[in-house]
Amino acid sequence: MAALTVEPELIVAGAGAGDPELITLKAYKLLQEVPVVLYDNLVNKSLLDYTKPGCENIYVGKLPYGDYTPQEQIHELIKEKAFSKGRVLRLKGGDPFIFGRGFEEILYARHHGIKTTFIPGITSMQASGFYDIPLTFRNISESIWVVTGTRKDGSLSADLQLAIQSKATVVIYMGMKKLPEISNIYIDKGYGDMPAAIIHYASLPYHKLVRGAIKDLPQLATEQHITHPALIIIGPVTDTALLAGTE
Amino acid sequence: MAALTVEPELIVAGAGAGDPELITLKAYKLLQEVPVVLYDNLVNKSLLDYTKPGCENIYVGKLPYGDYTPQEQIHELIKEKAFSKGRVLRLKGGDPFIFGRGFEEILYARHHGIKTTFIPGITSMQASGFYDIPLTFRNISESIWVVTGTRKDGSLSADLQLAIQSKATVVIYMGMKKLPEISNIYIDKGYGDMPAAIIHYASLPYHKLVRGAIKDLPQLATEQHITHPALIIIGPVTDTALLAGTE
Repeated sequence: MAALTVEPELIVAGAGAGDPELITLKAYKLLQEVPVVLYDNLVNKSLLDYTKPGCENIYVGKLPYGDYTPQEQIHELIKEKAFSKGRVLRLKGGDPFIFGRGFEEILYARHHGIKTTFIPGITSMQASGFYDIPLTFRNISESIWVVTGTRKDGSLSADLQLAIQSKATVVIYMGMKKLPEISNIYIDKGYGDMPAAIIHYASLPYHKLVRGAIKDLPQLATEQHITHPALIIIGPVTDTALLAGTE
Repeated sequence: MAALTVEPELIVAGAGAGDPELITLKAYKLLQEVPVVLYDNLVNKSLLDYTKPGCENIYVGKLPYGDYTPQEQIHELIKEKAFSKGRVLRLKGGDPFIFGRGFEEILYARHHGIKTTFIPGITSMQASGFYDIPLTFRNISESIWVVTGTRKDGSLSADLQLAIQSKATVVIYMGMKKLPEISNIYIDKGYGDMPAAIIHYASLPYHKLVRGAIKDLPQLATEQHITHPALIIIGPVTDTALLAGTE
């Protein structure tokens, strides 16, 4: 009997933000077909119910001792599973190419002769719409500046100085540790009263939302025990009364 | 016999960008249930095949003489159909809250006592991933600045001056008419060699893609007859060879 031949393939797909039904139809269909799923911490676990019997669902998110699965280990798993089982669905919370390191996994796979496919996903800033926060609004905010708060080289504050001068809605991923710093930059520039919001676990039943002036946001977050994972949005679009008044 | 009672509801949902399977599972399910769909120019028409028999599919996009259906007319339709038929699915290309005017429709509906629901959608910048352009990439670009090129008051250039100084990937929606102006801003600042790309009808069979230095992009677009609808992306993430070299 000939050996089973499988074409090794890596599908890097976004699972969407929170609510499992925010996954795309394309990723949903593949989820029901593949023999292996590698999934992250922020992927809604109920999505795994759609996999076929015998599908190997492997968690590659946060480890018990608080660290994340090293990227190198994920790469090794991709290679091993793609060559032994064929199609590997790498399911990531949000969008794999927006702070997701998805393209690094694509490059790794190609380097090892593995076919690659990409599927975008709803990223958490898009779930802000569930809280009446549109990212743009005519004559109020017509651009969006999206940044991660996890860099270590200080570039957040440098770029934020520029963004404050623009008309952009400022969206900060993974920025809770830098919230006091962010707040202070706005205060120093004279924009302490700028409306802002923090959304924790957007679109999920245990979500939390705080709204307030950016100068008060660190205190509000502390009072309401809002921590990671959370999205910080700064700009007039977070002021629902203001938007409603434009009618 | 009692009159049919329907609860008027407006569901503002993103259809995704191009490929019909980029729609969310949530919007896909509703598409099969509602009695009325109001859809835009950039919504993939094959999505309408999923509607139930008798569903009224109304086009509210570009009119034959080249103009768009006035927003006031769309509002009137929302009101009329919600009160006569119940659930109205307002399907918009991309994400309704990213340059989509979706929240204006939500506010209008609420003002008239109509229940509202929002569902995000994959926006066209996320489809850039199909062309090996991740919007962020570790140590290369860790923020994204998203702007529309359709404003009339000149603020594009003001904000772009700031964005150029940042480390952001710059994404411009509806910017083809301003491409020469955008290119000149980069040249004037000494960044004419910045890698850039234009994607026309991303994720669809008749898509087009050009890559090149931002200084050459207007000429490349003319040569390859790339027009609206198209997305302009500027930054090192558009240089695939550069990203591959980081392995």
